[in-house]
Amino acid sequence: MSDFAHERHKPPTPLDRPRELVVACAPVRSNVNLSRIVRAAGCCGVRRVICCGTAKVIGAIARDSLTPDNPAGLAVEVHRTLAPPLARLKADGYQLVGLEQAAGSQSLYTFAFERKTVLVIGNERLGLDEDVLRLVHHVVEIPVYGLPYAHNVATAAAMALYEYCRQYPNG
Amino acid sequence: MSDFAHERHKPPTPLDRPRELVVACAPVRSNVNLSRIVRAAGCCGVRRVICCGTAKVIGAIARDSLTPDNPAGLAVEVHRTLAPPLARLKADGYQLVGLEQAAGSQSLYTFAFERKTVLVIGNERLGLDEDVLRLVHHVVEIPVYGLPYAHNVATAAAMALYEYCRQYPNG
Repeated sequence: MSDFAHERHKPPTPLDRPRELVVACAPVRSNVNLSRIVRAAGCCGVRRVICCGTAKVIGAIARDSLTPDNPAGLAVEVHRTLAPPLARLKADGYQLVGLEQAAGSQSLYTFAFERKTVLVIGNERLGLDEDVLRLVHHVVEIPVYGLPYAHNVATAAAMALYEYCRQYPNG
Repeated sequence: MSDFAHERHKPPTPLDRPRELVVACAPVRSNVNLSRIVRAAGCCGVRRVICCGTAKVIGAIARDSLTPDNPAGLAVEVHRTLAPPLARLKADGYQLVGLEQAAGSQSLYTFAFERKTVLVIGNERLGLDEDVLRLVHHVVEIPVYGLPYAHNVATAAAMALYEYCRQYPNG
């Protein structure tokens, strides 16, 4: 016998307070990527995902992250463009943190998130528009060491969600 | 103008030494998930991915992580079963770390990886087999806070790869 036993339905970690992390996605090329981000956000206890344009969450990928049974109460809002809701969140005291490979960025390894954060995720190819880059307080990026030299957008988002949760393990 | 400018082809971070992280995947249900793991491993500078059974990497997803041009020199090996190559790596001094929701696991947030690590990734549904669980030194898991209460396997692998690279930012 090993010391470990697979537990398929282990209970989740309780949060001491609701997550004050919002995920905001620029218009993405792939609703598969968006849906993967929604599933990861659901698992992280995120309550609000903002997306744009023709975004549509695919249930088979996002799983039951959007069910009304989710104690985190995750909701996905679709806006026409990203800048107006971001400007409102900024006025509400959120720190806006872009995630992309950019000049002027900081490494995700050493970036200290504020609790009230909006993680702003760019388009797979185009990253974040200038009007959004003007709004964000910081840009973080994930060091890459080998080809293809850029993470898939949902993979990068997962890493950033993980890092935020590591810094705020209980909300 | 913002302080940030998108850089689509930013140069990678150099490693001071080759990555001594190996990724080993149990037979996965989805070659899409496997290919996503290969792309993420490629970006992390991993040089060796071990997979099993009918595993097949999809080029459009893994991108050029497997090109001979990759300075990290990533290679994917397909084995019939996972235990024999894992046993050999263990004999070679690698620490074997399973990634799954399991009794007896440690949190990825606080787990200190050894440099010579094999990250062992379970099947989407079944996790890791008993013969593999008997071999691993540790099992780590990623806390989840909301539905669907389990990360996608490629998402979880991305988070663990990130955490390893955070601990060894230069190899």
